[in-house]
Amino acid sequence: MKIAIINGPNLNMLGKREPSLYGNTSFESYFDDLKKEFGSIILDYYQSNHEGALIDYIQKTGFEYDGIILNAGAYTHTSIAIADAIRSITAPVVEVHISNIHKREVFRQHSYIAPVAAGSISGFGLHSYKLALLSFIK
Amino acid sequence: MKIAIINGPNLNMLGKREPSLYGNTSFESYFDDLKKEFGSIILDYYQSNHEGALIDYIQKTGFEYDGIILNAGAYTHTSIAIADAIRSITAPVVEVHISNIHKREVFRQHSYIAPVAAGSISGFGLHSYKLALLSFIK
Amino acid sequence: MKIAIINGPNLNMLGKREPSLYGNTSFESYFDDLKKEFGSIILDYYQSNHEGALIDYIQKTGFEYDGIILNAGAYTHTSIAIADAIRSITAPVVEVHISNIHKREVFRQHSYIAPVAAGSISGFGLHSYKLALLSFIK
Amino acid sequence: MKIAIINGPNLNMLGKREPSLYGNTSFESYFDDLKKEFGSIILDYYQSNHEGALIDYIQKTGFEYDGIILNAGAYTHTSIAIADAIRSITAPVVEVHISNIHKREVFRQHSYIAPVAAGSISGFGLHSYKLALLSFIK
Amino acid sequence: MKIAIINGPNLNMLGKREPSLYGNTSFESYFDDLKKEFGSIILDYYQSNHEGALIDYIQKTGFEYDGIILNAGAYTHTSIAIADAIRSITAPVVEVHISNIHKREVFRQHSYIAPVAAGSISGFGLHSYKLALLSFIK
Amino acid sequence: MKIAIINGPNLNMLGKREPSLYGNTSFESYFDDLKKEFGSIILDYYQSNHEGALIDYIQKTGFEYDGIILNAGAYTHTSIAIADAIRSITAPVVEVHISNIHKREVFRQHSYIAPVAAGSISGFGLHSYKLALLSFIK
Amino acid sequence: MKIAIINGPNLNMLGKREPSLYGNTSFESYFDDLKKEFGSIILDYYQSNHEGALIDYIQKTGFEYDGIILNAGAYTHTSIAIADAIRSITAPVVEVHISNIHKREVFRQHSYIAPVAAGSISGFGLHSYKLALLSFIK
Amino acid sequence: MKIAIINGPNLNMLGKREPSLYGNTSFESYFDDLKKEFGSIILDYYQSNHEGALIDYIQKTGFEYDGIILNAGAYTHTSIAIADAIRSITAPVVEVHISNIHKREVFRQHSYIAPVAAGSISGFGLHSYKLALLSFIK
Amino acid sequence: MKIAIINGPNLNMLGKREPSLYGNTSFESYFDDLKKEFGSIILDYYQSNHEGALIDYIQKTGFEYDGIILNAGAYTHTSIAIADAIRSITAPVVEVHISNIHKREVFRQHSYIAPVAAGSISGFGLHSYKLALLSFIK
Amino acid sequence: MKIAIINGPNLNMLGKREPSLYGNTSFESYFDDLKKEFGSIILDYYQSNHEGALIDYIQKTGFEYDGIILNAGAYTHTSIAIADAIRSITAPVVEVHISNIHKREVFRQHSYIAPVAAGSISGFGLHSYKLALLSFIK
Amino acid sequence: MKIAIINGPNLNMLGKREPSLYGNTSFESYFDDLKKEFGSIILDYYQSNHEGALIDYIQKTGFEYDGIILNAGAYTHTSIAIADAIRSITAPVVEVHISNIHKREVFRQHSYIAPVAAGSISGFGLHSYKLALLSFIK
Amino acid sequence: MKIAIINGPNLNMLGKREPSLYGNTSFESYFDDLKKEFGSIILDYYQSNHEGALIDYIQKTGFEYDGIILNAGAYTHTSIAIADAIRSITAPVVEVHISNIHKREVFRQHSYIAPVAAGSISGFGLHSYKLALLSFIK
Repeated sequence: MKIAIINGPNLNMLGKREPSLYGNTSFESYFDDLKKEFGSIILDYYQSNHEGALIDYIQKTGFEYDGIILNAGAYTHTSIAIADAIRSITAPVVEVHISNIHKREVFRQHSYIAPVAAGSISGFGLHSYKLALLSFIK
Repeated sequence: MKIAIINGPNLNMLGKREPSLYGNTSFESYFDDLKKEFGSIILDYYQSNHEGALIDYIQKTGFEYDGIILNAGAYTHTSIAIADAIRSITAPVVEVHISNIHKREVFRQHSYIAPVAAGSISGFGLHSYKLALLSFIK
Repeated sequence: MKIAIINGPNLNMLGKREPSLYGNTSFESYFDDLKKEFGSIILDYYQSNHEGALIDYIQKTGFEYDGIILNAGAYTHTSIAIADAIRSITAPVVEVHISNIHKREVFRQHSYIAPVAAGSISGFGLHSYKLALLSFIK
Repeated sequence: MKIAIINGPNLNMLGKREPSLYGNTSFESYFDDLKKEFGSIILDYYQSNHEGALIDYIQKTGFEYDGIILNAGAYTHTSIAIADAIRSITAPVVEVHISNIHKREVFRQHSYIAPVAAGSISGFGLHSYKLALLSFIK
Repeated sequence: MKIAIINGPNLNMLGKREPSLYGNTSFESYFDDLKKEFGSIILDYYQSNHEGALIDYIQKTGFEYDGIILNAGAYTHTSIAIADAIRSITAPVVEVHISNIHKREVFRQHSYIAPVAAGSISGFGLHSYKLALLSFIK
Repeated sequence: MKIAIINGPNLNMLGKREPSLYGNTSFESYFDDLKKEFGSIILDYYQSNHEGALIDYIQKTGFEYDGIILNAGAYTHTSIAIADAIRSITAPVVEVHISNIHKREVFRQHSYIAPVAAGSISGFGLHSYKLALLSFIK
Repeated sequence: MKIAIINGPNLNMLGKREPSLYGNTSFESYFDDLKKEFGSIILDYYQSNHEGALIDYIQKTGFEYDGIILNAGAYTHTSIAIADAIRSITAPVVEVHISNIHKREVFRQHSYIAPVAAGSISGFGLHSYKLALLSFIK
Repeated sequence: MKIAIINGPNLNMLGKREPSLYGNTSFESYFDDLKKEFGSIILDYYQSNHEGALIDYIQKTGFEYDGIILNAGAYTHTSIAIADAIRSITAPVVEVHISNIHKREVFRQHSYIAPVAAGSISGFGLHSYKLALLSFIK
Repeated sequence: MKIAIINGPNLNMLGKREPSLYGNTSFESYFDDLKKEFGSIILDYYQSNHEGALIDYIQKTGFEYDGIILNAGAYTHTSIAIADAIRSITAPVVEVHISNIHKREVFRQHSYIAPVAAGSISGFGLHSYKLALLSFIK
Repeated sequence: MKIAIINGPNLNMLGKREPSLYGNTSFESYFDDLKKEFGSIILDYYQSNHEGALIDYIQKTGFEYDGIILNAGAYTHTSIAIADAIRSITAPVVEVHISNIHKREVFRQHSYIAPVAAGSISGFGLHSYKLALLSFIK
Repeated sequence: MKIAIINGPNLNMLGKREPSLYGNTSFESYFDDLKKEFGSIILDYYQSNHEGALIDYIQKTGFEYDGIILNAGAYTHTSIAIADAIRSITAPVVEVHISNIHKREVFRQHSYIAPVAAGSISGFGLHSYKLALLSFIK
Repeated sequence: MKIAIINGPNLNMLGKREPSLYGNTSFESYFDDLKKEFGSIILDYYQSNHEGALIDYIQKTGFEYDGIILNAGAYTHTSIAIADAIRSITAPVVEVHISNIHKREVFRQHSYIAPVAAGSISGFGLHSYKLALLSFIK
């Protein structure tokens, strides 16, 4: 099984600066732990602040991987183009959010990704990614 | 660890009738499987079509259990009273939905439960409940 | 043929008090007349002020009766849960209102029941129920 | 008793073409059946695609007939002028729809006719007209 | 000076029936009085319930008359086509209403005619027409 | 007959400065002409930029005068307090506007004054005031 | 004089748990104090988390008591059915809230109860109930 | 204890004219009764139709008095400036309304004062002021 | 191939008057040029200011022609009845506009025709009609 | 160069009371510093809580000064009349706010002043006024 | 004549995968056919999933080409920046869509491109591009 | 002191083409003047049409510079991702606009940047950048 984890804008800041806001764990080190725990799964990780680059990557992996775990960050709320990319591929996409976006600003409560995703997991911190991975294993 | 699973209105129909709509598995039989798989966890199950009964049960379990898994069904979208009950208890509540509610009618896309839940999992069929359970174990 | 008539909140007040508001006929006496006029049809009547109890009764009768005549009262405008119950049963449901709800407050002009009902009859006083019954006979 | 049945735009297509959409019965043949079944009632039928012609006809019949059965078609949702015509006459008007308009587009869910009609019947196919007729007989 | 007075849908009912609603004066007799009082002005009067006929008449008079007094009735609130006709002619149009439309339903408080009219007079009963006529004389 | 003309904020600038915007006639000189033309009517004029002062004056004149001609300027769109003052007096109030406010910004298209005025006249320049005066004479 | 105090969902938690949120006084002990202070008044108290049970109780007391003091909790914002029950009884109902609901979420700022209540008192803590009681005494 | 009662626009009309609308009691005579009944409290009364004058008075009394009872009249719905004045002072402000504003026009159902007031009392006629006074005494 | 071109309200004014607004070419002369250029196609032209007449004509040609080119003018934005007529016929309809309606008033930016048309062409002046014709030829 | 600084409602409280909210500097002392720093500029200062007084002052200075620096306080969001006054004068007006109003309540995010101002500066504390002054110097 | 065709996000998928969704023709092969058919026109083609890259390309070609044919894909509905780029160039831009976007989701019915385009063509499949090309030739 | 000036999409066109729209000064030459005038400050300049590139640059400079001056152009109104980048850095960001955006289209009147900026300056042409720079110096 081959799963791609894709992080959108500003998620490269996780754990690198401002631990009070983002925690102490960088996504790279969390990702290493995931790879160790799920040794039999081929896991890839990609992050970009560029909407277009995220679309390019979704198109590239969307026919070769068995699933995509996507935290589109702020593009969740503004990008119809990413949602269209998800619609056009064959791999199922699970939407993930670290925080509970429903406790935040009103404009974060609409997701263009949710209606085209297979499922959605939010509010469990970095643990959300592992639950998403488990959703593919069943 | 003690976890309560609470299902709201119409979820008693699961697997009993109309398999094309609800699948073949009743929630009771799925719940039995969950209990076997997670033998070390005390799992309770409650279902009601009554908003008030759901509040009564949340108040009763909300200080004694380590967590609540709640699929409030249609009350997700209309019940401020259930959300207030969640706010008033100490146990964390994970919101669960069987289907991806963002693919359905507009009125199903607002949740009073989400902003007061610890996290939210939707779209994985009955598997959503197991992922919710795993969110407490970590 | 077996038809269930279901009345929602506050409709138990009909004809009992405040005749200027509700008329002089109680629903029970109107129901007796209906039963006499349509002797060959098995007619049942249920009223409750409890949303959950109405759902319970719809689920119970919804697979055994040939049709349901439902005046959901104020729950017409607020209950997605009752609409979901109607969606999950096999008996066709005819929505009935005594008064013309379109002449009243704005919040009474949206019905969650209408889109899931087979048909809708409103504004003919208690006579609306008989027309609903006739809709099943054709 | 004298009752006028008035059909608005595009209802002249009923049963003439596209049976899968409109059924096989033309309104004229249905109307003949109605006249036979209700021999003691004087029944008239008028159809027009012209908003102004419908108003003219409502003004002409609105003081001489005992009741009007009106399916204003698409003008239901756009014509304040027809609603004003109904307000200005003495005959009670019963609003009729063949399909359940609440299952269709959002713009079909507001009716200018409903608040000025005596009552409203929708969703029973052509049978809606007969129920409307029965509403005058009681 | 040549002035055309144009009345829209249902204004043919004025003073003919229901005096409590419309008063005792028919527009024709009021119009005769106006003609007598303003003998030096050529006054024409046209009424139709048909939106298209009103447009035809506006196009016909709109280049030959010195002014148009228009009470578009219910079409005031729904007809962009009449507003476009007014935009395309050279005669100035004064909008007139018998009643104060701002005391009535919300949907009567938007006018497509007002932004393309030279001026607007409402709420003075039939006297509104005479004030409109005086607005051309100055 | 005693009529008060009341002008709201910024209408003291009329004709004093910026003739291209406001014309060359000051309201005072126009008012002198009106008084000459209608010698038999007692005419008073009051202008203020203060919402409270306008209310004070409406309360003072509202029981002694036979009518009030009010151009509330920008307060037309924001002052419920002036509308309440009009509601509380016995003299009928005619709303007047120099320009056609429906050709301007959206926020100028709602009037708190219109629903409590006897009638409304707008778009005829300073001539609007004379038409308002004529509305009292009939 | 006979007054019923009715509390809606989650108000049974007052003073029992989470004193920082709800204060230290349970409603029962506050109610005892009220009864002592107003010895000449017959005071009854009822609480339920069930919308239907609240309606049942309002119908039962609404013709026998001289007044009802109602804190409908979250149902204030969602229950047309409770508002209809209030409309159908003869006893005047005073709406009460412990906190100032206008400082809270937007969805708490609309009340279905307020337009059918005799009066409304909010923001004075438990003292709101005593002020409501005093409103009946005058 | 020193309490200031402040009345906004048009409340100077109370009891002076139009008894059917405002009752027979002027606020001054009601205020005299209040002062007699609460002899130990220093009570001041101020009324103005001027938004700015109300702000001046709130600023003046807001640091010297123990409480303010404010009926801002129509400014309740339009004045952010009065609300800001309340935010900037130390004396608690109780919002008072004579009528139940929730039974009136939609634009009267939003209050800028409510979110910055300590509490709110409406619908009890002049008695609302006494209840407000009692809220300070406890 | 048989194509009908249908023009709605006010399009009969094209090129006849006000060349600065409508250009110098009447639609009739433009239509003659089209017929010459596309000699092998049977082209018909119809214009009416009457919504009902446009529906009549669409119904008449909608089963006999290979395509319809429709510029519904102002009815584009208000007529559900014309859209229903298009839905009920078999000939594909291409929506055409002379100007770019998206640069104009907000109310011109919604089209009832667009969702039921095969395609839409706007902004190319009279040339839009020729492009529409070319869309049928391919 | 002659510049007028105008402060609206509640800005007279700056630095006088509640230093935690308003800082320790009164506007008068800040204004003295500004005058010293910009000795060659004639600087005037005016504050009022009265909307009408602010309009009077804008009209008075608006043709004699080279520029106006206006912090309209809460009237920023409610006063079309002040905006109209700015439109009618010749001096350019720079809008100033001490705090970043976009971080505050939704109703503070619309400004009637901004569209008629030459420019806008907000969020720099009292320093905003100096920047506004520098905008005139360039 | 030099024309640039620009395709936005996900349009690189056309004809490459999922023929049922996108058809069998890749845009490149369609583009080759266009170039052959219009041999005398210099045609360029550019596609990118990156909003910024599209802006860069519009700026580069926008002063050298005689026209641009733009299918901005999902950016049609979200990109003010692309619309601003179009505003800033001299070449006319024709908006093109393959499908009829008005039959799809609500969020696809608003276009930021349409108001700044010379014209708009949608719903004719790939043929839309050829019609756009023909619009430049006339 | 180290300040970065960042310009968003289409601002590279300033002064290069269309002087009537953008003026004659390119930003580069204006920037050279700024650097000369503020010799003691390290000033950097970056422009991109790519949302992602702007985020990359904000992340890079956001911890090393003492302040950022950001004119996000059209992304001001659509980019939550840029706003999130600003939230995640330590350098204060001043929002700048050349024109008064409140005089333009409605969609330009909402800024995602403003609520996360330290302050905002708009409407002073290129001079806005210098005022922003002065805001850091004080």
